[in-house]
Amino acid sequence: MQQESPLQIDLLIHARWIIPANGTQSVFEDHSIAVHDGRITAVLPTENSKQRYVATEEFNLGDHALIPGLINAHGHAAMSLLRGAADDLQLHTWLHDYIWPLESRWVSEQFVYEGTQLAIAEMLLCGTTCFADMYFFPDAAARAAKEIGIRAQLCCPVLDFPSAWAADADEYISKATQLHDTYRHHPLINVAFGPHAPYTVSDAPLRKIAILAEEMDVPIHMHVHETAQEVHDAETTTGKRPLQRLAALGLVSPRLLCVHATQLTDAEITLLHDNGASVVHCPESNLKLASGFCPVAKLHKAGVNVALGTDGAASNNDLDMFAEMRTAALIGKAVAGDASAVPALQALEMATLNGARALGMDDSIGSLKPGKLADIVAIRMDTFNAMPVYNIISHLVYSTQSNQVSHVWVGGRLLVEGGQLTTIDTHKLRSNVLVWQAHIQPDARR
Amino acid sequence: MQQESPLQIDLLIHARWIIPANGTQSVFEDHSIAVHDGRITAVLPTENSKQRYVATEEFNLGDHALIPGLINAHGHAAMSLLRGAADDLQLHTWLHDYIWPLESRWVSEQFVYEGTQLAIAEMLLCGTTCFADMYFFPDAAARAAKEIGIRAQLCCPVLDFPSAWAADADEYISKATQLHDTYRHHPLINVAFGPHAPYTVSDAPLRKIAILAEEMDVPIHMHVHETAQEVHDAETTTGKRPLQRLAALGLVSPRLLCVHATQLTDAEITLLHDNGASVVHCPESNLKLASGFCPVAKLHKAGVNVALGTDGAASNNDLDMFAEMRTAALIGKAVAGDASAVPALQALEMATLNGARALGMDDSIGSLKPGKLADIVAIRMDTFNAMPVYNIISHLVYSTQSNQVSHVWVGGRLLVEGGQLTTIDTHKLRSNVLVWQAHIQPDARR
Repeated sequence: MQQESPLQIDLLIHARWIIPANGTQSVFEDHSIAVHDGRITAVLPTENSKQRYVATEEFNLGDHALIPGLINAHGHAAMSLLRGAADDLQLHTWLHDYIWPLESRWVSEQFVYEGTQLAIAEMLLCGTTCFADMYFFPDAAARAAKEIGIRAQLCCPVLDFPSAWAADADEYISKATQLHDTYRHHPLINVAFGPHAPYTVSDAPLRKIAILAEEMDVPIHMHVHETAQEVHDAETTTGKRPLQRLAALGLVSPRLLCVHATQLTDAEITLLHDNGASVVHCPESNLKLASGFCPVAKLHKAGVNVALGTDGAASNNDLDMFAEMRTAALIGKAVAGDASAVPALQALEMATLNGARALGMDDSIGSLKPGKLADIVAIRMDTFNAMPVYNIISHLVYSTQSNQVSHVWVGGRLLVEGGQLTTIDTHKLRSNVLVWQAHIQPDARR
Repeated sequence: MQQESPLQIDLLIHARWIIPANGTQSVFEDHSIAVHDGRITAVLPTENSKQRYVATEEFNLGDHALIPGLINAHGHAAMSLLRGAADDLQLHTWLHDYIWPLESRWVSEQFVYEGTQLAIAEMLLCGTTCFADMYFFPDAAARAAKEIGIRAQLCCPVLDFPSAWAADADEYISKATQLHDTYRHHPLINVAFGPHAPYTVSDAPLRKIAILAEEMDVPIHMHVHETAQEVHDAETTTGKRPLQRLAALGLVSPRLLCVHATQLTDAEITLLHDNGASVVHCPESNLKLASGFCPVAKLHKAGVNVALGTDGAASNNDLDMFAEMRTAALIGKAVAGDASAVPALQALEMATLNGARALGMDDSIGSLKPGKLADIVAIRMDTFNAMPVYNIISHLVYSTQSNQVSHVWVGGRLLVEGGQLTTIDTHKLRSNVLVWQAHIQPDARR
């Protein structure tokens, strides 16, 4: 019998546990991931991998678990510069007296560029490899993401009213299509529509977005049914619940990501399911703003795809998807009144494969599967909070601290090594943030 | 004018921020804490401190916040050895088919000693300096705490039925009084009664405990109104709600810690307030077991003292009081339907001063105040998830990861330095835990 000569590949990662998160409970022990040209080529026993491959780079992660890169399916990255500027306030006071004035005073292209860098630094260190972002100056956010090497879906905001970025709905939409053209073939960046919310975008631009999204083949990312007040106000002024209006406008489709969705009737859950729309659950933001409870267990039972997001750091106040997974699993049980609801694997899938589905990217990311892009996170499991290990998936969701993240690859490129960022000038970022802090502090403290 | 010569003291800690958590919002910037003979002697501007004192040890923590040591007011430390052994199960299945069989198979003096060491290692690294514990073999837990140097209140369990530790209620009670005698004058360890729950302890031992607790001047620590089922069952079998029965037996007093308390009528809240009893809120455990929601904002408004606990690692699954503070603040708002409920400072006080009050120790711990014991935690605030800083108290509750804890002092003794445990043989502990893991794994996986 002839011994085949080993294949030369770029990267081989050996780990104690691999959790592919591809829709099954399976955990591979003492397995390895082979990566070439930025893609996963195999997941196989470590023993075999050493015979089959010779890799340019090799990592022995004997106390670690490998999972697919986490996908933060909703946020406002640049708002990290406003972290902790206003908390513990009624929603209306928080928005009208703090967040909006701070934004109108400070948001600029540079604010978004440097704020997004700060957010990406935090997200990478917490194991996030792809994020969907809705904020002004998405071109600046795209530049930050591209330079650092993280994957991002920029959901260009559309509003009826002007901002520092655009004057009216038409200009928002036209800037979105331009940005889409710019990044049409980029390996890391893609562009979607981000109409802010039913109560801030009128029918005409929404109709236009529905048509353009179809032509451009991109998602529509929107805050929907965030609070009971929003639904009540819409019923009072339009006679319709927001989702009913969106459905009539042709927006409820597999392209739609309904962010928050704390107020859903059974009929609306059926509507989302039948039309293949996704929900992006942001549990910590919903709790912090007392917005209501997203019925995750019900949505899951109905077959609706539920992804997970942190929302912005002004309403969370971190971008830690491990904390978000835990909160989603915990609050999901409490809301369902059933301790078996939203089990650990489901929470992990919300943060990985379901996120990829919501972003329309499940062909290329969201699980550790040969053929997919090598977006991979390694987590140390030898810390006291992770001992003993009976069930690694339980640990990932219920007891992992995000600082256990040791290595992060995006498309096979190592962006975090031994808990350190490899593509960010951290000294410069830190000093830039301190400059913003000094400027913004007086307004934040008023 | 004559210059006074500087005072020689043991320890001087200079910090960027000091949050005394003594019932006011105040934050001291660029201040120092002076410590001598294990107690705080002054909190003063760093500038002055350098003139007034010469210290044997001095720490310059220029990017750090100092807070009082966190007080974990309810847990079952040794159950850390069962972390992740059973999750995502209905409460009845979880207890009857998993936890109780595992405990009856494995719990021994050695299990408790080594399991408590594991719990203490995790707790210290997360900034906990004092914990209240309810578990079998409290003598073994006391030994672990004493040797490591952490402060603990051992709440000796009392049950109607036998366990590996005692045969009947009388033996539980007699062992509790013995343990109390042993540690009567110990600087770190004190002993309380831990009657398990209204449904597991009958009237006679509860009456006896009420009298003994008064004579011995110790707290009574009890699971009370954890679930709606518990209250419903009691109403069906006894005609009374559990708190009503406890009140009739003379147990509702300033000595009583009602752990969980997810089911409270307005009259019961008044009863707790009028009798000075405390509630120990365990939000992550309540969510994970779908037990219900403790009405924290209502309790606070009524003037009831609410402390915070992690519960055991089998139902959490970590012992991270930073995560618990965040969850308490977040879920407190959602339950109250008010984003201004349970603000950050209140959550921090639940984890410090209110905990000290519940344990009857607020004369000596719970805030950074001259005269109190030097239980102090330093937290690094230069990480990206903590930038920028507008409001340090918001950061401590909403965005701090417990791994930012850098230094921990208990009674002036340094137990964590630069994120490393100083009084635990971590190699030995790790290998002991791995032995337990290998033994328990087959049962946990069945």
